[in-house]
Amino acid sequence: MSNATPGIAEITRAIRNVPDFPKPDIQFKDITPVLADAALFAACIDLLTADVKPGSVDAVVGIDARGFIFAAAAAIKLKAGFVPVRKKSKLPYTCYEQSYDLEYGTNTVAIHIDAVKPGARVILVDDLLATGGTAAAAVALLERIGANVVEVSFLIELSFLDGRKKLANQNVRSLVTY
Amino acid sequence: MSNATPGIAEITRAIRNVPDFPKPDIQFKDITPVLADAALFAACIDLLTADVKPGSVDAVVGIDARGFIFAAAAAIKLKAGFVPVRKKSKLPYTCYEQSYDLEYGTNTVAIHIDAVKPGARVILVDDLLATGGTAAAAVALLERIGANVVEVSFLIELSFLDGRKKLANQNVRSLVTY
Repeated sequence: MSNATPGIAEITRAIRNVPDFPKPDIQFKDITPVLADAALFAACIDLLTADVKPGSVDAVVGIDARGFIFAAAAAIKLKAGFVPVRKKSKLPYTCYEQSYDLEYGTNTVAIHIDAVKPGARVILVDDLLATGGTAAAAVALLERIGANVVEVSFLIELSFLDGRKKLANQNVRSLVTY
Repeated sequence: MSNATPGIAEITRAIRNVPDFPKPDIQFKDITPVLADAALFAACIDLLTADVKPGSVDAVVGIDARGFIFAAAAAIKLKAGFVPVRKKSKLPYTCYEQSYDLEYGTNTVAIHIDAVKPGARVILVDDLLATGGTAAAAVALLERIGANVVEVSFLIELSFLDGRKKLANQNVRSLVTY
């Protein structure tokens, strides 16, 4: 790699395709080679937050577990706080919960009722936009506690799953689209 | 809070005690108020990596899930890569696994066999040193892939659980001790 700051092309090349994970016929996009490379990881965070000035948002929201990686890193870069959205029963204090449909069954995510002050400006940063169910549930939780969701950013978007439709009222950014 | 950079006293004051979580008689130390405060979160990362110069380590290792928050943030600050240690079956590529004893039963964590190059200098950053089982298993995995573990840093240490004994050959740092 050259000394120039890497861009989306270099990030895309570093994503490793793992066939048949977690089940047959799924082509899993393994981002760990991107994370392990200091320049590529920093470039991801820069690109995911390219429109957000440091100090201009109160918090970056991350979804358990891979989303924590990008959101926490973005929070440090933007001089913002970090707010977790977690699977039900993982957060210790009083929570709001939001369920959403999966292919089979439902899933529930939660946020602390006092995670941000009403009117706080936040961005949501996650690794993957697939069907959009988790991200839409996280946005619903953020709106319930009075947050102003400025932008929703994803490293990868699986566009054939139409996840953007579930985030129709949001500013959505993704870096790498399949 | 003043405009001065907050220190360990301010971080400690922001940790919220939640009684009887996740089960009766456990006093859970809720760090989400620390994370949500931009100055406190940045101070945590600065203090957790106080002895590590930016550019001097190849990667920061984080343990699923809360450990991801601190390790990813530290990686961006130190201009290092990020390496995840995850619960068994979560990482998509070929892994080494390490089991450790719990109060009842065992747990298994995993790392990609190519997570770092042999000889890479890494630090492990996590939220909590309790019995030390998870951290010791992570160190064992890192040594198996040839990493040089320079330091192991925790936000909180529950000293009455003697977790340091399981990390006897490591440089261990913790910010807040109960």
